[in-house]
Parts: sequence; structure tokens; C-alpha cells
Amino acid sequence: MTRKLRMGMVGGGQGAFIGGVHRKAAALDGQIDFVAGALSSTPEKAVASGRELGLSGDRTYGSWQDMLAGELARPKDERIDFVSIVTPNHVHYEVAKAFAEAGIHVVCDKPLVHTLEQARDLVGVVERTGVVFAVTYNYTGYPMVREARDLVRAGKIGEIRKVVVEYNQGWLARHVENKQADWRTDPARSGVAGAIGDIGSHAENLVATITNLELDAICADVTAFVPGRRLDDDANMLLRFKGGAKGILWCSQIEVGGENDLRIRVYGTEGTLTWHQEDPNYLVLDSLDAPRQVLTRGNAYLGSAAKAATRLPTGHPEAFIEAFANLYVGAAEAIRAGDEGRAPDSLIADFPTVHDGARGVAFIETAVRSGQSSEKWTPFSALAPEVTP
Amino acid sequence: MTRKLRMGMVGGGQGAFIGGVHRKAAALDGQIDFVAGALSSTPEKAVASGRELGLSGDRTYGSWQDMLAGELARPKDERIDFVSIVTPNHVHYEVAKAFAEAGIHVVCDKPLVHTLEQARDLVGVVERTGVVFAVTYNYTGYPMVREARDLVRAGKIGEIRKVVVEYNQGWLARHVENKQADWRTDPARSGVAGAIGDIGSHAENLVATITNLELDAICADVTAFVPGRRLDDDANMLLRFKGGAKGILWCSQIEVGGENDLRIRVYGTEGTLTWHQEDPNYLVLDSLDAPRQVLTRGNAYLGSAAKAATRLPTGHPEAFIEAFANLYVGAAEAIRAGDEGRAPDSLIADFPTVHDGARGVAFIETAVRSGQSSEKWTPFSALAPEVTP
Amino acid sequence: MTRKLRMGMVGGGQGAFIGGVHRKAAALDGQIDFVAGALSSTPEKAVASGRELGLSGDRTYGSWQDMLAGELARPKDERIDFVSIVTPNHVHYEVAKAFAEAGIHVVCDKPLVHTLEQARDLVGVVERTGVVFAVTYNYTGYPMVREARDLVRAGKIGEIRKVVVEYNQGWLARHVENKQADWRTDPARSGVAGAIGDIGSHAENLVATITNLELDAICADVTAFVPGRRLDDDANMLLRFKGGAKGILWCSQIEVGGENDLRIRVYGTEGTLTWHQEDPNYLVLDSLDAPRQVLTRGNAYLGSAAKAATRLPTGHPEAFIEAFANLYVGAAEAIRAGDEGRAPDSLIADFPTVHDGARGVAFIETAVRSGQSSEKWTPFSALAPEVTP
Amino acid sequence: MTRKLRMGMVGGGQGAFIGGVHRKAAALDGQIDFVAGALSSTPEKAVASGRELGLSGDRTYGSWQDMLAGELARPKDERIDFVSIVTPNHVHYEVAKAFAEAGIHVVCDKPLVHTLEQARDLVGVVERTGVVFAVTYNYTGYPMVREARDLVRAGKIGEIRKVVVEYNQGWLARHVENKQADWRTDPARSGVAGAIGDIGSHAENLVATITNLELDAICADVTAFVPGRRLDDDANMLLRFKGGAKGILWCSQIEVGGENDLRIRVYGTEGTLTWHQEDPNYLVLDSLDAPRQVLTRGNAYLGSAAKAATRLPTGHPEAFIEAFANLYVGAAEAIRAGDEGRAPDSLIADFPTVHDGARGVAFIETAVRSGQSSEKWTPFSALAPEVTP
Repeated sequence: MTRKLRMGMVGGGQGAFIGGVHRKAAALDGQIDFVAGALSSTPEKAVASGRELGLSGDRTYGSWQDMLAGELARPKDERIDFVSIVTPNHVHYEVAKAFAEAGIHVVCDKPLVHTLEQARDLVGVVERTGVVFAVTYNYTGYPMVREARDLVRAGKIGEIRKVVVEYNQGWLARHVENKQADWRTDPARSGVAGAIGDIGSHAENLVATITNLELDAICADVTAFVPGRRLDDDANMLLRFKGGAKGILWCSQIEVGGENDLRIRVYGTEGTLTWHQEDPNYLVLDSLDAPRQVLTRGNAYLGSAAKAATRLPTGHPEAFIEAFANLYVGAAEAIRAGDEGRAPDSLIADFPTVHDGARGVAFIETAVRSGQSSEKWTPFSALAPEVTP
Repeated sequence: MTRKLRMGMVGGGQGAFIGGVHRKAAALDGQIDFVAGALSSTPEKAVASGRELGLSGDRTYGSWQDMLAGELARPKDERIDFVSIVTPNHVHYEVAKAFAEAGIHVVCDKPLVHTLEQARDLVGVVERTGVVFAVTYNYTGYPMVREARDLVRAGKIGEIRKVVVEYNQGWLARHVENKQADWRTDPARSGVAGAIGDIGSHAENLVATITNLELDAICADVTAFVPGRRLDDDANMLLRFKGGAKGILWCSQIEVGGENDLRIRVYGTEGTLTWHQEDPNYLVLDSLDAPRQVLTRGNAYLGSAAKAATRLPTGHPEAFIEAFANLYVGAAEAIRAGDEGRAPDSLIADFPTVHDGARGVAFIETAVRSGQSSEKWTPFSALAPEVTP
Repeated sequence: MTRKLRMGMVGGGQGAFIGGVHRKAAALDGQIDFVAGALSSTPEKAVASGRELGLSGDRTYGSWQDMLAGELARPKDERIDFVSIVTPNHVHYEVAKAFAEAGIHVVCDKPLVHTLEQARDLVGVVERTGVVFAVTYNYTGYPMVREARDLVRAGKIGEIRKVVVEYNQGWLARHVENKQADWRTDPARSGVAGAIGDIGSHAENLVATITNLELDAICADVTAFVPGRRLDDDANMLLRFKGGAKGILWCSQIEVGGENDLRIRVYGTEGTLTWHQEDPNYLVLDSLDAPRQVLTRGNAYLGSAAKAATRLPTGHPEAFIEAFANLYVGAAEAIRAGDEGRAPDSLIADFPTVHDGARGVAFIETAVRSGQSSEKWTPFSALAPEVTP
Repeated sequence: MTRKLRMGMVGGGQGAFIGGVHRKAAALDGQIDFVAGALSSTPEKAVASGRELGLSGDRTYGSWQDMLAGELARPKDERIDFVSIVTPNHVHYEVAKAFAEAGIHVVCDKPLVHTLEQARDLVGVVERTGVVFAVTYNYTGYPMVREARDLVRAGKIGEIRKVVVEYNQGWLARHVENKQADWRTDPARSGVAGAIGDIGSHAENLVATITNLELDAICADVTAFVPGRRLDDDANMLLRFKGGAKGILWCSQIEVGGENDLRIRVYGTEGTLTWHQEDPNYLVLDSLDAPRQVLTRGNAYLGSAAKAATRLPTGHPEAFIEAFANLYVGAAEAIRAGDEGRAPDSLIADFPTVHDGARGVAFIETAVRSGQSSEKWTPFSALAPEVTP
């Protein structure tokens, strides 16, 4: 029998959006019990949220510090196995660091942290402690994204020449006031970037995951279109990758009609892959001299990674929460494998790590700097080389 | 705080498909704990399945009879609130009847039972005992199906003239041997119908849910295309509804390339609604003299039923499991409301009942009889009038 | 050099729709000169229309009888090579017969004639005189329809089991008064059928062209939904073909939002073909165990018939008029081949003949009779066996 | 009656592609007779091509100089009204200039000429002589492009913030040798640009036509991916427009699977317009707080420009040739209006002019220069201000 893991959560109380998604994703497959929470930065709200969600009173904490202390005080076989951090961005760093240093595994929302220095530090902590650390770039949890990655690896489209990735949203096309909009447009809580951090970083991660290309330089045109907005709501970028591939990346929250329209096209010498998040069960493959193929989730002709990430037969669509849950399933497998002293099943323990998170921070910083620069190309330096000896 | 309900399950052990879907659907929203099971008709398999799924040993039963007895022996605040019946069709009747008569609420997969007589009997039991009884015609759980129903009710497309509903699958286009195929093509376990019962009944339910039209007569051409197959794998029907509307319904499991391609078009005097299960977040509305509109899940312009059935913002697709979970959430609300002596929230407690299930059985029987008949029209008699005094 | 053919036209004057389409289709490829016309049943209008269209005065005739006489009076190398008949249906028979008997080739709009007796007679005339006789079931002119036909012939989808063909229009969803609507809903000019003749006959022809299946029997539910309408505006049919294949065919002019939505799906034992007239440059091929393929017009992997019917490279869409023009090009090739005493190039001289037209009349009659019948199945008897010795 | 115009053609002989398109476009509506040609730079081929196309021998010229002289020698009422120039790019300038100076109207393929100096000169000639001069940026002939332009003008999407225009082709993804590929990749015949001139210029024109925005600066990343290729086959650009709008434009001929995939999205403060050339009968309109609308060609709710450019009812698709023909119809209306001393009907005489052509040359030059520059932004200076006093 698969042991159920115990999850604590920081953030995600009343009025939050993403916390509920994490809880559903964690619950979906019956492998994780949600047992403890510090659900809000306001203690009263934290308690009310815990009660609403059915947490027991003694594990409904008023602060993440209390939760860390309280859980460490419990015997190991009751203590939470991992913490899920779903606060606004600015809180990620200190929480993630504290739990990791206490040896508690971490699932953290993206973007990882605010600065490269924090990212570098956190990578060091994770490497030192050996905790499992997953960053919820959730779009990589989609089976057809994994299929795309595997087709690229298998050389199905030849050598990659060009990538076009776009993330179109319109919900901030005008001034909006609500909890979601507020923190995302506030530099203190969101960091140096608006749309670039919130959604552009997903686009970067998608490119890296599927293509394994390394960014070389970025040329960005960054705009805050809505009067009074303090962070970017639109960014258009040309990309250069090491080895000569080119790219276009854009992210926008002012494109009226854009819902959550993340798309990627990867052009190789032999073929092209196209995937669209709003229609996620399909992957289009174009090849030289052949008719277009539409691959659909759940079919026997797909690779093992796509199959391992699939719950339902073809035509029974899976979507956002299922993809998100794949990251939880992946982290859970890595945690259990560690406990059991075995190597994790790599088809299952397939999730973005702290290194992806750190590279994402580097991407955000480089893009913002390019937007401010009159230089055509702003070099990208991934964090990894600096911290890995 | 919302009390978590306790679920027992009959069927759904190792190798089964739909049981896992029910468990995920029940788990998704953190309102239901899966605590007991009689997961297989083979006691050893039942026990192994229970262990695998993390059930405690004393609530892993070797038969549904044992589970019923065992749970009734527990104090009420530990006992399962409801049973979820996910066995092959031929077992539904006796299990559903036994639990309902013991006052335990029921969630039952479709088609409800094998015969009209059983259906009639079960409707009587439910009416007498007052248990909550949900039948998992899961496609009615989709937010955009509820929106379609509400737009029809609101007169948005005028008076309905015609309905076209189709359910295209291809997985039985040739002889297949596996657990799923075996029982579905076996009259002893599946009943008098193959495709008609397995998927045609979903199509019937979808029409009834959205349009509220009552069937008057059916003209069916029913075929078993694959050599040696004992039940229909393809059925094409003309429909007549009371009041003069016409329809076409077909279901097939031999249409190569069909995955789970359920679609409906409802044509009224003023407009048309189109919905497609494989792309479930959209609803197309055509109106006289106006451009086509594409309504998408999660938007503020939708009605309250669609909103109540929605978890994520626009563009973050929801799919099959989420729709399925809406039926569990609905049944749970009805059960809790009963416990608390209040009226259920009708936006939440929105699920197909034993009456839908019974009408579905009548549909299957009528369609099969029409297929065997040389009469053009075989009259449809819903069950309800006969059993409701 | 390719000799340009001389075309006369009957019908198609001011206010007509289809006449202009025929003229554009004939003009497109520079192979046909439009030189003579009897463009209206009203002599004044005929003359005005001829002037407007740039016909010379002496070949602008007040009636088709005058045109026939006038053209026969000219030397053969000035005389029209063929007549294009684009009048309302009830005029087709006498005009077609008269020109054919005079040895002038005919392009005639569909449906061919009003009655089986007329059809039988006309087939006889054509067989006796040997004139080229094309019936403008224009949808068969699309390259991807020809590809579908050739893939079926080549066994690409195995043995056909089922066909679904649908023709959805909504322009007559309410009472309409204009030239187009008037004659189509008038039994005197349109014949025994409304939608069945106007668009259902296209659906029948599409099925026959692609599948080569022979109809065995029809079960139709035929309706005139709009109050006061004298001919059907909606017809839903089950089909049986010789050899055991089944089908569904419907045509409707009351489906709000339907524009000219003709679609066909052909299901075989090995694969499925899907084509949609409003998106005509694509043909979808599903095969057992393989990803869906989307074939697009203009590619090297297509067959020779599709290629021969194509003018532009991939991605440069061709549409309705180009498909229509392919029938004119085809008839022109047949006419020139006859003149030159050679066999026509069969890839070019590819068009529906008087036999297709006659079978279409039989389809219309059978469908209408089935709609009036309480028998489930109304046998279909194609015309051909009766007239071909 | 509408007087038929007489057309001469330079280029477009055997083996050429675009010449045939021009001839079909000119023929489609029965308003233009093709009467003279200098169809190839090789006199023998010119003669053979003329014979094949049915030109009379005395108007089949061996060179464009002969044609100009020969036609001028004819009486005005026999002489060609206009010349259609469909040669490779490098020949456009001298031919266009010579005919325009002789007072013969011109329809010229794009890009207009090779250099800004030539463009400036040609604008001067056209302004001085007053000839009608149309440049066949054919995509602006689509009815739904005109609808988009008119909706922008009417303020339907508010103030424009961003434009994304893309032109995806894959036919040059590897080394190709044929007539089409040869001249397009040869600097001597194609000019300074490959993909930028061939297709990027269409994208620029589409943006300018729909939005009326003026380019301010370009930041381009320009690549020749295929080894040995001498001109760009891929170019990715960030755009800045006067007034603050931003844009992304790319064109590529190495994107495998790309057929003729030109798409534009125009984002305003109130709404968004999306159009796709391969599916040209549709225009998608997103608006704040409202469901997506899909506008389709041929409907009564469209504006007068779209209607004027339409031949067929909704659902009867029009495509590439029809759009192309709209430019010929437009030029013909302008020519006839001039002859008749009246103002042209502006809904008909709607076509890109020599000014569009000159601005297109400026775009190509600026893009190429930006590709070579290490400056982020290369200023765009349209030609018009310099040449219009």
C-alpha cells in the first residue's frame, strides 16, 4: 500500500485562489492528507480558514513560524511530510528556507523568490539539506507537454531552430481591484515584474522543459499599458538560445479576450510541435512531406511519460487540476522514495525543481533589465553555473 | 465548517476503470472521506484492493452484504453516509435496493438497472425511504451543460424544434478483449443493450437535462457490426418529442477515431446551442441576425448554475473529473441538508436522480425494441407516470 | 492551344443568385466565353440582363426557344458549344431535353428534374444523342472530396460500415420573402420537396460520390416547421445501403446559425474520413492505432485527382467557386475531347452526369414518400436499372 | 452596361505561379479581357505562353518594350487599359515606370521595387501622370479584413495597444530548387530581403490597412537558417508605432507545417480582433465583459465594405482568388471612373496604392537594416513625407 503523505499549507486562506487549487490537486489522487495550515498572514483569518477547511484546531496555526515549531514538536510519524507554500511571492523565500532547513520537504508556487540572491541561497539550502523541493510550474504537468518534451528528445522534429511561446491574458486590460489583481500589481508583494513574473515565467519554463535549450540573450519591450499600473502588464521579447536557435516570447494581461491562453510552437529542421493550454489534451505534430498529425492524450501510441501522467481514457478530457496534481504526485513519489531509501520512479517523480525556480528568477530579472536597456541584447546568465561547483 | 461525509464503495477494485474516477471525483473537493469498500466480487481481490487504496482492514469488506451489515453495526456518526455503486450494471439493482432500504444514501453509476420492473421497484423504494439517490450521468455536471439548460429555460433560443445528439466512439471497432470491453459486450452483465446502454443513455440524459423535452417515440436502426458481438455497437435513431420537436440521436462504438465524442445541438425558433464534451469549457450560441457567440466557462456573464459548478477562472480548463465531482458535491449537499433539516441549496444539489435513472432504462428498452420492430415509431413511455401515484 | 468554348445560359438574370456563380465558375479558368443568353422568363428582363452582362444584342434572347433557334441558325464554329441551365427547377426538363436533342451539350443545375418519369426520359435522350451532360452537384468539385473518394476506393478506411452526412442551414428558420426563398418553397417551381431537393440532394450526391454505396432503403421524418410553409424545411433520415452499411442523413433550413454547413463522415473498418464544406481545404483521416491526420489541399502526398482539381499551393485557400469551376473545366474537357475524337482526360473530365441527376430525383422522391409513410423502410430504386438495357 | 477593360500582362508565362492567379482573378467577374502579353523574358517562351493562353498572335509580344510600343500604336479603344506586372521583383520598377509614363494604368505585384530611391521615383511618376496604380497586397481584398479595418475605424475595440501579426510558412525549411524558390532566394532578383520581402511585407501591409497605425521603429532578429541560403528565411521583430502602440511581427519560411499561415491580432482598450488567412471567412471579436463573437462573411450584420467585397452567401466560402479579384475589380472601377469623369465608388475602388507599395519598401529596408544593427531600435521613415510636397 502506498503511504499517504501529510501536507501542511502556508497561505491559501479565505479569498485566495491558488491555495484551493493546490488543495484539490493534492487531494485528487488520494495519496496526500491535508492536516495542518497557517493559512493567512492574519491569525484570525488563518483560524477561520482552517475551521472552514476541516483542519483540527491544534493544527490550525496563526503563523507559519508557529506551524513549523508545532509540527517539529510532533513525532515524526505524525508530522507533516511537506509544506505547500501558496502565499504571495514575497513570502516564499523565508518560508521555503525555514522549512527546508528543518528538513521538511517543500512544494512552492512560482515564481520561486524575488531576487537572484535569494534564489542562489535557496538552491544552496536545498542542495545541503537534500529535501525534495518542487516548484509548481504546473503547465509542465500536462501529459501532452511531457509528450512534446519526449518527442524533442527523441529527435522527432530534428534540431530546433525556433520557438514561439505566447501567454495571452486580458483580465488586467483595465484597472481592476480585487485580491488577485492587488498583489500581482504591487511591487512589494509581486517583485520587480508583473506579467513577466506571473505568466511570462511559466512561458520560460515551458520552453526550457520541452526544448532543453539554454537562453543566451533577451531583447524585451516591456510596457505597463493601464494608467497608474506600477508593474508591466505586457512584454514582448526576442530570444536567442545557445547554439543558434531563435525565439519569440510574449506575455500580456491586457489582451482583451485572452483567458489563459498559453501556447507554444517548437520548430525543428524536421518537424514542428504545437500545444495550447486551453485545449491541453492535444499535441499537433507537423513533419516534412507528411500530413499534420494530431496526437491525443490517452492513446497507446504515446510515450511512457505521457502515459504515466494520464488518468483517463482518450476523449475523457483531463485539464488544469489534473496537470497540477501530477506535480504533487511527483513530489510525493520523490518523498516516499527518499523515506524508503530507493530511487524514485523517474516517470512519476517528474516535476520542476528549485533549479527551474532559480532559472525562472534569472529570466524575470533579465527580461526586466532588457526592457529598461537601450542595448539590443541583454545576456542571460542562468543561476546554476554560479552555485553548482 | 462543512462536515465531511463518509463514503463506502461497492465495486471499483483492481483493474476497474470507473471506480477510480468516482474516488477521484469524491476526493477532489475535500468534502468526502472514502472509508469503506466491498471493492470486488472476489473476496481476495476485494481485500487486496482495499489495502492498496489505504482502507482500514476492518472496513475492507469481502462482499457488499458484509459491508452493509458491518456499517449498520457501527454508531451513526462513524457509519458511511452513502454508498457509491460502481459495479457492472447487473449488480446495481440489488445493492442499491438493499442500501436504500437500510436508509443509506446512494450514488449509483448508470444505467440504473437492467429492467423497467427493477427501475419501477427502485423508484418506489427511494420514494418510500426518502434517501438521496444520485445517478452519475456525469456529463450533466459540466458547467456549460448547466448553462445550456438555463439558457433554454430562460427562452434564449425560443421554442425548441429539433435536437441532434451524437455519441461517437471507436474503441470497439474491432474485437477487443479486456475487462472494460468484456462486460460491456456481455448481455448477462450489461443488459439488453451495448452501446445504447453504455453511451446512448448518456445522450438521452443530456437531451432531457438541457431541453426538458419528453420523448414521444423512437425509430431506431440498431446494429452489431463486429462479427460475433452479442450486443449493439451502433444505433441510429430518429426521435419525436411531445409537442412536436424532432430529434436525431446516435451512439456508436465502431466509429474509428471517435474517442469520447459526445455532442449536442439544440435548435430553437430563435437560436441554437451547441456543446461538445471533448471541449467542454465552451458553449456556442447562435441567434437570429447576430454573430455567433462562444460562451466560456468562468465568465461573469454566465448564469448562477454554471458559476456554482465552476472551480477555476476562465482559460484554466476544467474537465471530466471536475464535472463528475459536481455530482458528488451535489449529492453531499443534499445529504447534509437532510441531516441538518434544511432545504438544500438547489444550485449545488443539482444531480440526476433515480427518476432520471428510471427514464434512462425506459429509453434503453424502447430503443432496443424499436431496433427489433418493423413499425416506424415505437412509443416511449416514461416510467414516472406509472409509479408516481 | 486550348480552344475556348462558347457558353449560352438559360436563366440567371437580374436578381438571381446561382446564375452569377455559374458565370464566374465558367470564366475563372479562361477556357469558356459566355456569348449568349436567355436570362429571364420575362423578355424585357432578359434583354436588360444581357445588356448588363455585356452580351451582344443579337445573342441576347427573349426566350430559351429563341436562343435555341438563333444559335442553331449560326455556323457551327460560332454556335454555342453548350448551354448552362440555371433556372428554377421546374424549367430544367424541357430546356435540357430540347438542347440535348439539338445536339448541344448541357450543364444543368440540380435537382435535375421534377419527376422520375422526366428523369428517365432525359437519361434516354442523353444516351441517344451522346451529348455531354453535367449536373452541377458542385460540392463534388472540391479537391478534398475527390481525395476522399480516392482514399475510399484505395481501401484506406477498409470496408464502409456507416455514413453520417448532414446539411445544416438556418436561413429559412422563419418566414422569408425574397426571390431565393420564394421559388424554393413553392411546389410549382421547386417540386415535391423543399430542403430535401435543395440541399438534401447534395448530401445524397456527396455520399454516392465518395462511397460508391448504393442506397437500399430510407426511413425519413420530414417536417415543415415554419407555419404556412408548403414544403419541407427539415428532414431526418436513416439510411440503409446495399451490402449492410448504415447511414444518417439530414438536411434542414431551420437550424438557426447554420450557414451552408454540409459535412460528411465515412466510417470504415479501418478508418474514418471527415470533410466539412465550410472548411473545404482539409480532410481528416482517422485510422486504427494511429494519430489523426489532417490532409490539406495542395500537398504532394495527395492523390492525382485532388491534384488535378487544384489551382493554388497549400495554405492559399480555394473555395466554393473554384470547386464549381472544376465541373465546368470537366465538362469542357469532355466536350473538347468529343470534338477532337479522343478520350477525355479522366482526371479532368470528372463531373456528375445525368445518371447522378436521375438518381438524385429518385432519392428526393423516395425520401418524400418515406416521410409520408408509416412503413419503417421505403425501398429505394435507383433509376439506372430501368433505363439502361 | 459595365465596359470590359482590356488587360496586358508582363511576366506570368509557362512555369510561373502568380501570373495564373492574376489572370484568374482578373477573369472571375467578367469585367476584364486579357488581350495582350509579354509573358516571359525569353521571347520564344513568351510566344509559346501566349499561344497556350489563347492570346492572338499580334498581341503576343516578345518583350515588354514591344508590348508597350505595340499597344501605343493601336487606337485608344483597342489599346490595353492597364498592364498587370507579375515578373520577379527586380523587373517591376522599369516596367511600371514605362507604362505609367505612357499613361497606361498599372496593377503591380508586391513588393513594389527594390530600393527606396526607385519607390520614391515611382510615386513621383504616378502622382505626375495620374494613372491608377494598384499594388496587389492581395490579403487586403478579403471581406473580413475590410470588416476588421472598419470596426477599428468605428472604435469598436477602442484605442489600439498592441498588434501581433505572423506569417508562417515552411516550404523553404530545407534547400529547395524550383522556379519559385530560385528567384525568391536570389538577391539579384528578389532584392535585399527573402522572407521579409516575400511575406513580411504582406504582414506589414495588413497591419497598416487594418489599424492605420504608423510604424515608428523596428527591432529585428533576421536569420538565414538553411545552410547556403543568401537571403533571410526567418525574421522576428518587435514593433513600435507612433502614439505608443506596440507590436510583434514575424515571418518565416522555415517553419515546417506552415502553409500560408498569415494571422493578425489587434488588441485595443475595449476589444480584440483576430483574423486568419487560411480560414478567411471569419473574424473573431472579443469585447470586455461579453462572450466572444465570430463574425462570418456574408451576413447582414457586417459593414458595407465587407458586403461590397462579397459574392456569395454565408457558408459558401470565398477564398484567395476572390480576395485577389477584389483588387482587380477595385482598380477597374477606378479606371472606369477616370474614363467617365466621375468619382469612383469608394466601396469598390478599394485597393493598395503606390503609396502602400512605397511604404512596404521602406519597411523591408528598415527591417533588414535593423537585423544588421546592434542598436535596439531602428527608426522607420515612411517614404510618403519625403515625396509628397
